[in-house]
Amino acid sequence: MSTLNAIIGYYSTPFGEFWDKTLDDLILDAFNGVLKESKIEKNGIDAIFLGNMLGGVVEESLLLSAHVAELTDMHIPVYRIEAACASGGLAFQNADVYLKSHPGSTVMVLGAEKMTDISAGEITRGLASAASDEEQTVGLTFPGVYALLAQMYLEKYGYNEEHLASISVKNHAHGVLNEKAHFRRYVTIDNVLESPYVAYPLKVLDSSPISDGAAAVILTNDHKYITASKAAHILSSETATDSISIAKRKQLDTLEATVVAAQKAFTCARIERKDINLMEVHDCFSIAEILALEDLGFWEKGKGGQHAREMVTSRDSGSNLIVNTSGGLKAAGHPVGGTGIKQIGEVYLQLTGQAGERQVKHHKFGLAHNVGGSGGVAVVTILGV
Amino acid sequence: MSTLNAIIGYYSTPFGEFWDKTLDDLILDAFNGVLKESKIEKNGIDAIFLGNMLGGVVEESLLLSAHVAELTDMHIPVYRIEAACASGGLAFQNADVYLKSHPGSTVMVLGAEKMTDISAGEITRGLASAASDEEQTVGLTFPGVYALLAQMYLEKYGYNEEHLASISVKNHAHGVLNEKAHFRRYVTIDNVLESPYVAYPLKVLDSSPISDGAAAVILTNDHKYITASKAAHILSSETATDSISIAKRKQLDTLEATVVAAQKAFTCARIERKDINLMEVHDCFSIAEILALEDLGFWEKGKGGQHAREMVTSRDSGSNLIVNTSGGLKAAGHPVGGTGIKQIGEVYLQLTGQAGERQVKHHKFGLAHNVGGSGGVAVVTILGV
Repeated sequence: MSTLNAIIGYYSTPFGEFWDKTLDDLILDAFNGVLKESKIEKNGIDAIFLGNMLGGVVEESLLLSAHVAELTDMHIPVYRIEAACASGGLAFQNADVYLKSHPGSTVMVLGAEKMTDISAGEITRGLASAASDEEQTVGLTFPGVYALLAQMYLEKYGYNEEHLASISVKNHAHGVLNEKAHFRRYVTIDNVLESPYVAYPLKVLDSSPISDGAAAVILTNDHKYITASKAAHILSSETATDSISIAKRKQLDTLEATVVAAQKAFTCARIERKDINLMEVHDCFSIAEILALEDLGFWEKGKGGQHAREMVTSRDSGSNLIVNTSGGLKAAGHPVGGTGIKQIGEVYLQLTGQAGERQVKHHKFGLAHNVGGSGGVAVVTILGV
Repeated sequence: MSTLNAIIGYYSTPFGEFWDKTLDDLILDAFNGVLKESKIEKNGIDAIFLGNMLGGVVEESLLLSAHVAELTDMHIPVYRIEAACASGGLAFQNADVYLKSHPGSTVMVLGAEKMTDISAGEITRGLASAASDEEQTVGLTFPGVYALLAQMYLEKYGYNEEHLASISVKNHAHGVLNEKAHFRRYVTIDNVLESPYVAYPLKVLDSSPISDGAAAVILTNDHKYITASKAAHILSSETATDSISIAKRKQLDTLEATVVAAQKAFTCARIERKDINLMEVHDCFSIAEILALEDLGFWEKGKGGQHAREMVTSRDSGSNLIVNTSGGLKAAGHPVGGTGIKQIGEVYLQLTGQAGERQVKHHKFGLAHNVGGSGGVAVVTILGV
C-alpha cells in the first residue's frame, strides 16, 4: 500500500440520556462537530461511512444514507454498516479500505445510536437481535450471554467477583476525567459488589449503560490535509468474524474473532504488542475487558483476572499499557454505533496530545478494539504518530 | 485503477413466498449455490458483502456478519450493508471498492431478504422505515410515495394509467421465461387497469410483490479465476444519495440520485449510452421504470410514458435496448436485499450467454440500476465482456 491513511480530526457529542435528541439530531451534531474540529468544508468530504445498529428497530430509520444526504444537503456516497456493537469500528475499517483505492480523498466515519426514548424491555429485545435465534428463544439477552462467559472464566481460572469489579473501578476512575462521559464518578469495589445482579455473576456496575450519542472522525490520504493537521496514521484496521451463537464456539474463555483480527492487525502494522502503550478495548461488561486483553495477546490466557485486580492498566499504575482512558464503554457510555468511533477517537486524541485533562504521556502507538454481539465480529485498529 | 474486477459466477434462489425458509436458510442456499456455479471452494473467498434491509425488523437478525460466519464456518470479514431496496446494489459497489485495494482477491456479494412470515401491516411498516419521519407520520407508505410521483408525472406530461400499465405488461412477459421468477404469467393492459388500486393511480399490477429470496455473485481480480470462467468485467459501479423525504426534492419527476450515479458510472466506464443494449432497472412500481430510463439518460425527460406505451424495450421489439429481461422487480419478485444482486446477475448471465431460455442477442455492455426508498440512494453498475 502506497500511503497510509490518517485521521485528522475527531468530535464526539456527549454520551448519555438525551430525551430531546433524535438519531438524526445526534448524526447532525457529530457531522458539524467533526468538520469544525478538522477545519474542513463539507464539500471536501468524498464519502461518509455510518455505523449504526438499531435504526429501524428503535426508531423507524432505515436507509440512513438518505437521512445523511438530507441532513447535509449532499449527494455523496453514504454507506451504513451494521455489525451490532461493532458497527462503528467496522464502518471505520470499511472507510480505510475505501481510501486505499481512492488517492487524494477524504471521508467521514460517523457512528451514532439513539437508545433511550424506548422502554427497557424494547431496547433489551432490540439489542438481543444480535444474539442467535437459539439464544433469543431461551431468553438469553446480552447480560446473560456475557454472564455465562464470566461464570466459566471465574470457575476455570479460580477468580471471584472482585476480580471483575476491578475493571469497573478503573474505568469509572478514568471516566471522571472525560467531559463527554455518561458517568463521571468514582466507584469502589464495594459499590460494584453491592450493586444488584443483572445476570449472575454480573451486576449493574459490571455493565455498560444504555446511552445516546454520536462520534465522528475525518480520514484522509490527501497530503495537504495531513500536513496541516494533527494527524495519526492508520497502521492497520482489520476485522474477523465468529459464530453468532456461543454454543457453536470451541472455547468460551476466548473470543476467536478478536484473536484473528488482532493477529492480522499486528502483522499488517509491523509492530509488536510491547510497542502499544495505550488501548481502548470493548468492555461492554467487566469480563469482556479481561477477555480482550488476553485475546489481543497482551496477557497470558487465564492471568487476566489477576492483572485486572492489580489494576495494572490504570492511568495511575505507572504501567506501560494504559487501557480505556476514555472510561471505556462502562463509564464513557455505550451508544452502540458510536462506541467504535469514540474508541478510535480517544486513541487519536491521546496520540496527538489533544486529550486535555485526561492526557497521558505522549505515546507513539495505540490500539482500538471493538466487538459486536458476544464476539461474532471484532475489529482491531492500530494507530501511530 | 490497474485491473478491472470481474464477475465469474452467479446464483439465485427462486424468488417467491417460502414459508418454510428463514433468512439464514436463504443466505445459505445462495452461498452454496454461487460457490457451485463458480466452481470455487469456500476457502477461496476473502470477504463477504451482504445486502439486507429488514434483518432486525422482520426477523430478530442483526449482526448478520456473525450469522454468515456461523453458517459458513469461517472467520473472514463480512460487511452487512443496509440501504433499503438498494442494499444489494450498494453491497456490490462496496465490494468492487474493496477489490480495488486487494489485488489477487476474491469476494462474494450476497443479497437476501425474508419478507413473508409476517403480517401485511408489519411488512408495510417495516418497508416504510425507509421513508422520512414526516412521510411515516402522515401514513405515507411506499406505494403512496410512488403514487405521488406517478400522479405528478402523468399530469405534467399528459399520460394516463395505460402508459404505466405497459411497463407491467412487458415485465410480466419477460418474467415468463425466468425459471426463478416469483410470477410467470402474462398480464394484459386490461388486467393491470382492472386490478385494485393500491394508491391512486398505482394498482396491484403496477406494484412489485413482497418476496423471499437471495442471490449471490462472485467477484474477483485474480487472473487465474477470470481466465478459467465466463467473466464479465465491472466497468464501473457508482452510488449517489438524495434526501430521504420527497418533500425536500427540487423536482418530483426526477430521481436526482439516479442522475448523479449514472453520470459518474458512464464517465468512469468510458462508454456512451448508445453502447448499452441491455439493462435491469429498478421497477418497484411501474412509474419507477419510466423515471429510471429518463434519469439514466436513455430517454428524454417526459417522453418515457410514450416509449413505455410502445414497449420499445421489450425483448420482442427488435430494439437496441432491452430492459428487465429477468422480469424486473414486478415479475421476478422483489426480496429487497436480493434485488440489486439479481439485477447484476441477470446482466452477467445475458452478457456471458448463460441466460438459457431468456437469452437475448449477445451484447457487449449492460447496466444495472438499483434504488433505495423513493430515490434516497441509487447505484448504477456497468458491466462489459
